[in-house]
Amino acid sequence: MAIDNRRLAELADHDAFIRRHNGPGTDDVAAMLAALGMDSLDTLVERTVPADIRLSRELDLDPPRSEAEALDYLKRLARQNKVFKTYIGQGYYNTHVPAVIQRNVLENPGWYTAYTPYQPEISQGRLEGLLNFQQMVMDLTGMELANASLLDEATAAAEAMALCQRANKTSKSLAFFVADDVLPQTLDVVRTRAHYFGFELIVAPADSLADHDVFGALLQYPGESGLVRDLAPLLAAARDKGIMTCVAADIMSLVLLKEPGALGADIVVGNTQRFGVPMGYGGPHAAYFATTDKLKRSIPGRIIGVSKDSRGSTALRMAMQTREQHIRREKATSNICTAQALLANMAAFYAVYHGAEGLTTIANRIHRLTTILAEGLKAKGVSLVHDSWFDTLRLTGIDAGKVLGRAMTHEINLRYFADGDIGVSLDETTTAHDVDALFDVLLGEEHGLSVSALDERVTAEGIGGIPSACRRDTAFLTHPTFKRFRSETEMLRYLKRLENKDLSLTHAMIPLGSCTMKLNATSEMIPITWPEFGQVHPFAPQEQAVGYKQMIDELAAFLVEITGYDHISMQPNSGAQGEYAGLVAIRRYQAAQGEGHRDVCLIPSSAHGTNPASAAMAQMKVVVVECDNNGNIDLDDLRAKAEQHSGVLSAIMLTYPSTHGVFEEGIREACTVVHRHGGQVYIDGANMNAQVGLSRPGDFGGDVSHLNLHKTFCIPHGGGGPGMGPIGVKEHLAPYVSNHVVTPIPGVKEACGAVSAAAYGSASILPISWAYIKMMGARGLRQATELAILNANYIAKRLEDHYPVLYRGVNGTVAHECIIDIRPLKAASGISEEDIAKRLMDYGFHAPTMSFPVPGTLMVEPTESESRYEIDRFCDAMVAIRGEIARVERGEWPADDNPLVNAPHTMADLMDPVWERPYSRETGAFPSDAVKAAKYWPAVNRVDNVFGDRQLICSCPSIDAYRD
Amino acid sequence: MAIDNRRLAELADHDAFIRRHNGPGTDDVAAMLAALGMDSLDTLVERTVPADIRLSRELDLDPPRSEAEALDYLKRLARQNKVFKTYIGQGYYNTHVPAVIQRNVLENPGWYTAYTPYQPEISQGRLEGLLNFQQMVMDLTGMELANASLLDEATAAAEAMALCQRANKTSKSLAFFVADDVLPQTLDVVRTRAHYFGFELIVAPADSLADHDVFGALLQYPGESGLVRDLAPLLAAARDKGIMTCVAADIMSLVLLKEPGALGADIVVGNTQRFGVPMGYGGPHAAYFATTDKLKRSIPGRIIGVSKDSRGSTALRMAMQTREQHIRREKATSNICTAQALLANMAAFYAVYHGAEGLTTIANRIHRLTTILAEGLKAKGVSLVHDSWFDTLRLTGIDAGKVLGRAMTHEINLRYFADGDIGVSLDETTTAHDVDALFDVLLGEEHGLSVSALDERVTAEGIGGIPSACRRDTAFLTHPTFKRFRSETEMLRYLKRLENKDLSLTHAMIPLGSCTMKLNATSEMIPITWPEFGQVHPFAPQEQAVGYKQMIDELAAFLVEITGYDHISMQPNSGAQGEYAGLVAIRRYQAAQGEGHRDVCLIPSSAHGTNPASAAMAQMKVVVVECDNNGNIDLDDLRAKAEQHSGVLSAIMLTYPSTHGVFEEGIREACTVVHRHGGQVYIDGANMNAQVGLSRPGDFGGDVSHLNLHKTFCIPHGGGGPGMGPIGVKEHLAPYVSNHVVTPIPGVKEACGAVSAAAYGSASILPISWAYIKMMGARGLRQATELAILNANYIAKRLEDHYPVLYRGVNGTVAHECIIDIRPLKAASGISEEDIAKRLMDYGFHAPTMSFPVPGTLMVEPTESESRYEIDRFCDAMVAIRGEIARVERGEWPADDNPLVNAPHTMADLMDPVWERPYSRETGAFPSDAVKAAKYWPAVNRVDNVFGDRQLICSCPSIDAYRD
Repeated sequence: MAIDNRRLAELADHDAFIRRHNGPGTDDVAAMLAALGMDSLDTLVERTVPADIRLSRELDLDPPRSEAEALDYLKRLARQNKVFKTYIGQGYYNTHVPAVIQRNVLENPGWYTAYTPYQPEISQGRLEGLLNFQQMVMDLTGMELANASLLDEATAAAEAMALCQRANKTSKSLAFFVADDVLPQTLDVVRTRAHYFGFELIVAPADSLADHDVFGALLQYPGESGLVRDLAPLLAAARDKGIMTCVAADIMSLVLLKEPGALGADIVVGNTQRFGVPMGYGGPHAAYFATTDKLKRSIPGRIIGVSKDSRGSTALRMAMQTREQHIRREKATSNICTAQALLANMAAFYAVYHGAEGLTTIANRIHRLTTILAEGLKAKGVSLVHDSWFDTLRLTGIDAGKVLGRAMTHEINLRYFADGDIGVSLDETTTAHDVDALFDVLLGEEHGLSVSALDERVTAEGIGGIPSACRRDTAFLTHPTFKRFRSETEMLRYLKRLENKDLSLTHAMIPLGSCTMKLNATSEMIPITWPEFGQVHPFAPQEQAVGYKQMIDELAAFLVEITGYDHISMQPNSGAQGEYAGLVAIRRYQAAQGEGHRDVCLIPSSAHGTNPASAAMAQMKVVVVECDNNGNIDLDDLRAKAEQHSGVLSAIMLTYPSTHGVFEEGIREACTVVHRHGGQVYIDGANMNAQVGLSRPGDFGGDVSHLNLHKTFCIPHGGGGPGMGPIGVKEHLAPYVSNHVVTPIPGVKEACGAVSAAAYGSASILPISWAYIKMMGARGLRQATELAILNANYIAKRLEDHYPVLYRGVNGTVAHECIIDIRPLKAASGISEEDIAKRLMDYGFHAPTMSFPVPGTLMVEPTESESRYEIDRFCDAMVAIRGEIARVERGEWPADDNPLVNAPHTMADLMDPVWERPYSRETGAFPSDAVKAAKYWPAVNRVDNVFGDRQLICSCPSIDAYRD
Repeated sequence: MAIDNRRLAELADHDAFIRRHNGPGTDDVAAMLAALGMDSLDTLVERTVPADIRLSRELDLDPPRSEAEALDYLKRLARQNKVFKTYIGQGYYNTHVPAVIQRNVLENPGWYTAYTPYQPEISQGRLEGLLNFQQMVMDLTGMELANASLLDEATAAAEAMALCQRANKTSKSLAFFVADDVLPQTLDVVRTRAHYFGFELIVAPADSLADHDVFGALLQYPGESGLVRDLAPLLAAARDKGIMTCVAADIMSLVLLKEPGALGADIVVGNTQRFGVPMGYGGPHAAYFATTDKLKRSIPGRIIGVSKDSRGSTALRMAMQTREQHIRREKATSNICTAQALLANMAAFYAVYHGAEGLTTIANRIHRLTTILAEGLKAKGVSLVHDSWFDTLRLTGIDAGKVLGRAMTHEINLRYFADGDIGVSLDETTTAHDVDALFDVLLGEEHGLSVSALDERVTAEGIGGIPSACRRDTAFLTHPTFKRFRSETEMLRYLKRLENKDLSLTHAMIPLGSCTMKLNATSEMIPITWPEFGQVHPFAPQEQAVGYKQMIDELAAFLVEITGYDHISMQPNSGAQGEYAGLVAIRRYQAAQGEGHRDVCLIPSSAHGTNPASAAMAQMKVVVVECDNNGNIDLDDLRAKAEQHSGVLSAIMLTYPSTHGVFEEGIREACTVVHRHGGQVYIDGANMNAQVGLSRPGDFGGDVSHLNLHKTFCIPHGGGGPGMGPIGVKEHLAPYVSNHVVTPIPGVKEACGAVSAAAYGSASILPISWAYIKMMGARGLRQATELAILNANYIAKRLEDHYPVLYRGVNGTVAHECIIDIRPLKAASGISEEDIAKRLMDYGFHAPTMSFPVPGTLMVEPTESESRYEIDRFCDAMVAIRGEIARVERGEWPADDNPLVNAPHTMADLMDPVWERPYSRETGAFPSDAVKAAKYWPAVNRVDNVFGDRQLICSCPSIDAYRD
């Protein structure tokens, strides 16, 4: 071997991560290009991306950093955050994440790379976890139904407001009551939402509720400064007056407090963060939403229900899921898609692990320590504002300046009210030693109090902060699932058992069109569980979040360069929330220009259902723009509609490349038309993965876009959330994005309310996107986009002789995804796109997106991260399935008994002693060599959705039911 | 609900971890005691542990700490370690652990909780990983055969010496040659081993090898101070003289250097640490051992071989494994059991992930930077001792004091030779920037050198440090496995695919008698991958390892209290190495007392094979003491033998409780007898799990014990290693334990050579045992022991009506494990213990220990961590299997065609269209409800061991072979 003559710069191999992220290697790329008859990626791009929007330069980003360098840098940033002992409360608490859950769920790609459980047969593990979540919420709130998580408590409260108005058939009022001790960030979000719904908000003392003519009311339980109020009389009076009520309740307090369901609430919402999910400077955490049975068909978000499979066995699935897929569009009052599945699962597992007994000990400990603190302070003459408490005290008449000084010395954060009062919220991690330190801080070190002496007195005298009327007297978490997994060994096995039921990216590609299931690299995920990111309270003083600020600022700068916008708002917690935030910014801007009357939003017929739903929520009138036969926006229709609504045109919402997977040639023109008529252009960033490094929405006419960081920028899907949907805006919109009432955002007008509970949304997962961009650099990002397009075109090529490919660009290429049309096949054979989707499970794959954006089709998106090996394996499966359909067409297999309609095949099928099907067991369950080498088994047979929706059961079945 | 009247101390719930670690809850314990007809755990203990050895007090340990508290404390300790940039080399190097491997192997219980792959059908994943390891070693060393890892390079070299002597049929010499540039710690270990083998060591310049009359020789490649010597002439000359040769080679250098196999070596050994395994202050890492084909039946340690299963499919298993189970006892020259499977797998995956191409880039970068450093220094007048190098330079004539001062300022560690020379070893993590800093440190900041200018010159002129005769000219890692998994996505899927083939503690209990497969708690595992523990070089200055020192000292203090000994030596890396170290300490002590002639070691016939093997290695004569019919040591025979050998009695080796799982009543008397005759008592700590908190070997007569930290103290088995076998000794032996030549150990005599390459063995896994003890406290540890005994007795009770239970104590109880006798059943039905073991796989369990200590039996050890639920599930399976055997006995199923002899059943069986067996598919593969709810599939059918041993193939088969 000769001496290596590569220069050091090359030997340093800073492109290593690019090769790790992108699936196809150099040889693969050459072979795939050859199959397409092209000579280079440049040619592919030239033929795919319209010349008039193509970026003519490399993005201006730092060169790619290695994984080790990126992690080193992030570690230095993290160390700039200061982790003080925090008693701020206000909806966020320290918690002990059980190590077995942290490592085997939060840090486990088997959990975090799974997709939303639309295909229940391969999602039974996380569906069971989410059903546990619902059961936990139902038990603790005393409600009859709970969903499987919303984005945060504040948006859950806003959803509750909308539901109250929708469901309240007796009240004609358009006013909504909010108690004045609701959490400030909740009020902020509710206010934003109310404004565009046209609701009047009445903020007043809770006790005055029945004095107001409102359709609904929101109360906090306990109140934000700690008061534990008996809500029963208030709720009864409200009910008498035809007012629907929502109680925002602290989940930990419900262990000891009378459940809001028993008090008469119609809706109960709250955060489950303190059940073992790190604060993470605001998120992600799962909010819960629970209702009475009466409201079950109106509950927002995802609900897991119990149904049965084709063998009659118990099987879980998302109930009423068609609601979401065919969202109510312009009639919508909610645009929710993303949930917080991963975090909901974590919270549920926390409850499973601790059980009622463990939670009771924890809650009692918190309450005892709070009582000791209260009694000690009272003994020293400190006044408490309330004479009841669970975990929070508001102290008054105390020298806040002195306390602050001592607190900083002790590295302790308290809540400082504007009026000089001080708030203290205890939590699971608080110890006797901590209370002692609190006495030192609050009273000075000469206080002479003894925690153990106080404990003795308080215990002996039965002193507590919970009024007797407010004490829980019902059992909870009585289901066997919450009793069986007490040892770490049993818990670990339960987690692994559930994990192994589910198909995730650890098994195979998940070719979901529009969802971009790319690699979530380990190096991107590692910082998430560093304590310096996890243990920062969202309302901690800014000087304790310096590392966060710099990381967020840097990420924003990256995204500015990538999108061509001028400013990024990191607040929205999901793509749909980003849409809403972007439209609200447009409306605020237009109002400020005296153009507040502009309220028409043009939306192409091909748009995702969230677009019109978001527009409706921003109080806009949706006008649909038609598509031509090629699936492109009909520019003539656009011109006509823009002209027609010129005086009132507010905006257009465009997805680019289109939901049909095509780079439409007319995009620049479409933007120009809208601008000419005074409208703003919203570019939906769902398909940004096809643009990064090749074109920038900010360059070709966009005024605002949201970016799904959980699609293009590597935040994992977590089995159905978390997500992040920051928005990029042009300069003129920048002052009108979301602000935050507790932690104001520089450069944003004060009056701009929040859309999310935390100023920077789910800040703790932003390092994922930061690391991705940092490790890829401009070169890597562009290559990723090119390979995403290459992979999609290669699939279109390999499948086009077997299935019609719908929609292509002017040069015959697709963008980063392709739609194959099953309708002709179905007409000929009776085999549906669903049969193919289920049959793919037998081949070890997750189905592509079904019937979106076109009914009767499958939309395939490989992303750049899939290797040619895997893509060929997928195409082989699709071709084989086509062969199977042909046998049905030819009558070799009956239309009602063949491997497609019987798919997926399970172990139960195989062990059945009776096998009278016209094909072999092997054909059924092991249809390819790849499957024989490594079989993934669907846990249940095809799930009966209709049965489940008809008999809606959203609580845990008895353990025996699983065994039937 | 009334106010909770528990006191704060109880609400603080410091016993939470105890409940997490121990499987049975309070109700379970009551039910299990009732089944045994006992009223309390105290009663159980009284009836089981002899009164005269029972500890009458609680252990004097801190109260139990919560998981969070223990981790906080460990974090504080960790922060006391200083992670300097380290260029010390000497066999340990910085490395980038690929994140996907760190998270999905090292931090994944699916990998780290697996057991040694004695049962190949449920171990195909890690067997494939280890086969990759062998292939990697064979390719890089150019040898025909490699084993699947030894404990460290030094012990591998010692094993090589023994093999040379054993295999060399031409030389009569008892001298062994060691080149004087062998790593100092290797020489240290080889010297210890040679002494007790009676070998003379000749340490001399490598070039003089052929001048000596020796049976074998050890050379270092490159030499310890960097010289790259053409070994071919030396090795040829040695061969001509009938000298067998071993080359200790740096694995990374072999990427560029001519492979030792091509140079003529008989044996090649080395460390694979720098292939992606953290330094960890010395370990654990996997050493490799490669030989020519001629030596294949003599190679020490575990070898993975390719065989076939009963369906003729390719199947892997440990080759020649009976060697290990029936170790050569007193004829042994090696006592190796434990390998470093987890670390070997990591190193192999590192090679799989990088492939030849990636490794070549890395090795060339290291070499280029070294060349730049060399050329820069030469340009500035610094003298290099050698004119060749791969990654290491030895500089001479430089002011070491000044350099040291600058190095400390830069937080850089160099190697400082005694003669004032300075060593610098570069590695994978070194960058151009680092070399720049090295120039600053070595030359002062005014050096004016430019790394990029030097790079330009060096590249242009083709300058390098490897003599042309030493350059590799052969390909390596050409097997498809080393080419396919280049993207992180593909790598992740490969790792998960392998993981999911294996049964680990994440699936079910692994009831291995004597192996104690208890919980490896996540909180115990978390610190292992903290950089403050991982990135410390074992020869770093002691002031940089302050946290390590304190942690080790604290752990030693815990173990002193637990065992009743006076001192702990943390050096031995496995139980067997502990035995050896303990016996060597005895021999040294006796020699110092003028009693060096004492060389008889009494060993009961029931002992584990490692005992006599270790004794033989310590140059002792083994005298077997018989057991009585109850399996206890025959005290009369012991008295007679002790009397007979009184003048030369060195020691006795006893296991307690015995390998038969019984607390023998005569233990104290046995110790007394031996002491009376001037002997020392070695108590094998393999069964310490039954003693902790109940009795202490140091109290009842032990002078020395090893402790398997990977059994009793929660270090995971890692699929066959790492282990740790520290020894506890009484005061008189303390000066005679192992010292270390590079990092001397306080209190140990200087002359006492090492048994292991690193002073504290595998220091980086010690936090596991530290955390376990800290979180359990005295109360928890005792309870664990009691529950381990309870669980075993409950199993004995549940099974005794179905299988005879061999050996019980005087009151009818067993200790922490029980032996069930299959011999009568086999006689009646033809069904063997192996059939039962394989059938258990169909029920989802790992087999118990087979045929140890008694042929034809199964030894079951549940440990305290298994819940009653799981134990009942296991017992149900055993009872059901007994029922199946009965059907064979009754002739309902033929003896040669029934679910037992056909076990395990695989997916291949089920998909077979032909099923002509006398039982159903369901009976075959889904024999219980538990299995139907969660099936674990053995990857292959029963493996043919004889076939594989006859046709020994230890390299990777072609990918196609797996598909046949």
